[in-house]
Amino acid sequence: MPQQYDFGMIGLGVMGSNLLLNLADHGYATIGYDLNPERMQALEEAAHPGTTVKGAAALADMVLALKKPRKLMMLVPAGKAVDAAITSVLPYLEAGDILIDGGNSFFKDTLHRIAYLQDQGIHFFGMGISGGELGARLGPSMMPGGDKEAYQYLKPLLEAVAAKTDGKPCVAYMGSGAAGHYVKMVHNGIEYAMMQLIAEAYDLLHRGAGYTNEQLQPLFQQWNEGPLQSFLIDITADIFRTIDAETGKHVVDIILDEAGSKGTGRWTTQEALNLPVAIPSIDAAVAARTISGVRSQRLKATGLYQQGNNSIANTESLTRDLESALVVAFLCAYAQGLSMIAMASEEEAMQIPLPSVVQVWKGGCIIRSALLGSFEQAFAQDAQLPNILLDANIAALVQQYEQGLRNTVTQAIAARIPVPAFASALAYIDSFRSAQLPTNLVQAQRDYFGAHTYRRIDKDGVFHTEWNAEAAD
Amino acid sequence: MPQQYDFGMIGLGVMGSNLLLNLADHGYATIGYDLNPERMQALEEAAHPGTTVKGAAALADMVLALKKPRKLMMLVPAGKAVDAAITSVLPYLEAGDILIDGGNSFFKDTLHRIAYLQDQGIHFFGMGISGGELGARLGPSMMPGGDKEAYQYLKPLLEAVAAKTDGKPCVAYMGSGAAGHYVKMVHNGIEYAMMQLIAEAYDLLHRGAGYTNEQLQPLFQQWNEGPLQSFLIDITADIFRTIDAETGKHVVDIILDEAGSKGTGRWTTQEALNLPVAIPSIDAAVAARTISGVRSQRLKATGLYQQGNNSIANTESLTRDLESALVVAFLCAYAQGLSMIAMASEEEAMQIPLPSVVQVWKGGCIIRSALLGSFEQAFAQDAQLPNILLDANIAALVQQYEQGLRNTVTQAIAARIPVPAFASALAYIDSFRSAQLPTNLVQAQRDYFGAHTYRRIDKDGVFHTEWNAEAAD
Repeated sequence: MPQQYDFGMIGLGVMGSNLLLNLADHGYATIGYDLNPERMQALEEAAHPGTTVKGAAALADMVLALKKPRKLMMLVPAGKAVDAAITSVLPYLEAGDILIDGGNSFFKDTLHRIAYLQDQGIHFFGMGISGGELGARLGPSMMPGGDKEAYQYLKPLLEAVAAKTDGKPCVAYMGSGAAGHYVKMVHNGIEYAMMQLIAEAYDLLHRGAGYTNEQLQPLFQQWNEGPLQSFLIDITADIFRTIDAETGKHVVDIILDEAGSKGTGRWTTQEALNLPVAIPSIDAAVAARTISGVRSQRLKATGLYQQGNNSIANTESLTRDLESALVVAFLCAYAQGLSMIAMASEEEAMQIPLPSVVQVWKGGCIIRSALLGSFEQAFAQDAQLPNILLDANIAALVQQYEQGLRNTVTQAIAARIPVPAFASALAYIDSFRSAQLPTNLVQAQRDYFGAHTYRRIDKDGVFHTEWNAEAAD
Repeated sequence: MPQQYDFGMIGLGVMGSNLLLNLADHGYATIGYDLNPERMQALEEAAHPGTTVKGAAALADMVLALKKPRKLMMLVPAGKAVDAAITSVLPYLEAGDILIDGGNSFFKDTLHRIAYLQDQGIHFFGMGISGGELGARLGPSMMPGGDKEAYQYLKPLLEAVAAKTDGKPCVAYMGSGAAGHYVKMVHNGIEYAMMQLIAEAYDLLHRGAGYTNEQLQPLFQQWNEGPLQSFLIDITADIFRTIDAETGKHVVDIILDEAGSKGTGRWTTQEALNLPVAIPSIDAAVAARTISGVRSQRLKATGLYQQGNNSIANTESLTRDLESALVVAFLCAYAQGLSMIAMASEEEAMQIPLPSVVQVWKGGCIIRSALLGSFEQAFAQDAQLPNILLDANIAALVQQYEQGLRNTVTQAIAARIPVPAFASALAYIDSFRSAQLPTNLVQAQRDYFGAHTYRRIDKDGVFHTEWNAEAAD
């Protein structure tokens, strides 16, 4: 069989097919394989005239038809399906070939797979892809990590199909090892926080101030034209005008409030604890989804607790305050996520280029927003910035908008509307700029009951006090 | 060698020695072994006259001198030292013997060790011990889990030496498998939250309202005589009057504010995510310690952010509000921890008796407090209560005190003093009693960009909307 194809795909679900079609539209000869033969036919039928998109009859046929070094991707569900796909394809690969896992795999699984395939001379890439089905078709954001030398073979293809912002592609080499899947994991953690923040704003406007969907839609649309401009604010405006054909009601009003998750937010929180790095807004967003899930307990509680009045007392500046609150709190979510990547990159020697992370997130992905432009400038000044809150322009931005965040949380507290993500963002800022935190007392307590020792402000060393000398009498 | 000893100890650090001395004071013949021979001598010298406390010359000597079934405990650092001790002692044990790990081992390690030793007929117990060095000597709180049949042999010894409240011992069978270490892990998570809450109260009083240590000490002492009565409030009062001999300053004022940790709080947060169950106050406390640790970044930030005025505007009701805030927020920390144990018990089939957990925590341990009495009543009504907030009396208690919590967080926000744990407790209550949360919007967003589907309030099933039908044009 002649080696005539540029790129192969294992798994022809919507994401895999769309990415192949996207590559083909950019002049690449593509071929795909799926266990379900109907998908090969559907793929070929979806191709634009004049493009080369082939459904392979067998996995071996596909692999052997690829130009060397072979470049092929798996887009199958994270977990055992990835290992099964590797086992199936491995006999047909040879040293120098490049295999990409484009799914949401846990980065530690990716590390094991890299080590396993390295022994066989195969370059394994973990690559996060964001943007959903439409992004895959028209321009996703992609976060590839792995062997830097081998990336040169992927670069032209990925840059051709990626989303573009200001003419730059939203794909770049994210670092060695599992850097690609690590960056995607944190991307999703930030996404959890932003979604929870928008939900809290919605709760304040809807439950607290009586805003209807008809009022919410233009407000979000207007926000999307200012500093909040972002994919998530944009689609939220869309959501408020979407009607259920069957009932004639707004779809958002008939959706059950128990939130699901695929686990990437949980991973982010768990891994942050292993570093450790503080990402309290992401933690709060994950916890908020969990508490939404105990709906039966919440319904029982409504019988035991006075519901009181959830009305916002002063609605005059509410939307202005909320806009400011969302700007600062979004910024905090990014700050936490980027500081996590900065620390993980160092701890795990992944050499993740933070300016590239910001560039890749600027278009195509779920967390794309106008705010990322400010971060780009911050990292241009200092590519190793451990936290974007330490950039002077970002500090000015925070201080410009923070009063709105304070007002928002204060109003929510009085109206008994929970705003865990907003409140955590505020505590994060106020902690971060405190030269002195009250954790000296925590250290005193730990030394008191557990002799855990403490350090001093006035000299080096490790110290212990016999606090309870008299209590022992 | 005659089998004359009731209990053996491997590891004669302060905890191990003190526990043996405590057993000996209650009439048991005890023997201990340590790799460091000086500790055997120190142990014997510390024994009260008329008690039987022996330092063994060799590990084998100790094991062979124990009455059968042998009862012996390891008190060595968690991790590899535990496995090393097991390997050393195993050749001398026989079927039916009972080996206890009294350290802070991770419960999953305990599960592996139970399975390994079960094959050899050894009953392995994971037992959390709280109360510090003094507790071990005079009456600790103990949380043993493992084989229920074998517990009968341990019961009289443990009940003799445990702390007592209202005449009841603060030790009880915590369930099967690693239940003992699981309960201790959550105990420590609650401890993290309570310590952080006290630190936040201290910050508001000290930084916000200018309270001196001389004013803080009597305030905490007074709090310890009301609904806040607890070990942690009690020792905090002590801390505020402890002077550094060298400088003449209060020790608390010379302690560096970077908090350390042994990892048990982190485990609690990570395991809660695996269940999942929401424990946001514990999460916030763990994050607060982490952020205290990036002191160099915080110091840099002080140059970029206006410090403003940290003064509490209205100090009139501050201490009354703070007392109420601490009552409700402590209660939330217990509610989160107990709900975690309830769910884990079911998920992992550990059959943890919640009434016994509360009884064991009532005395001897770091989180002992008057509040636990209310929980005892709640579990007497319903031993399977998934969350104590669903008990009518607890609900009344929360509502009696919650305004103080609202006032506290509101004041802190205005004064720019971070109160992440207080704020998370408030959001927890307000979420828990909300019949409708705004997470329907989160589900709409997930379905919009990822086709993740949603459930409806008006009928069963799983649904998807083509939200972006027009955006695709």
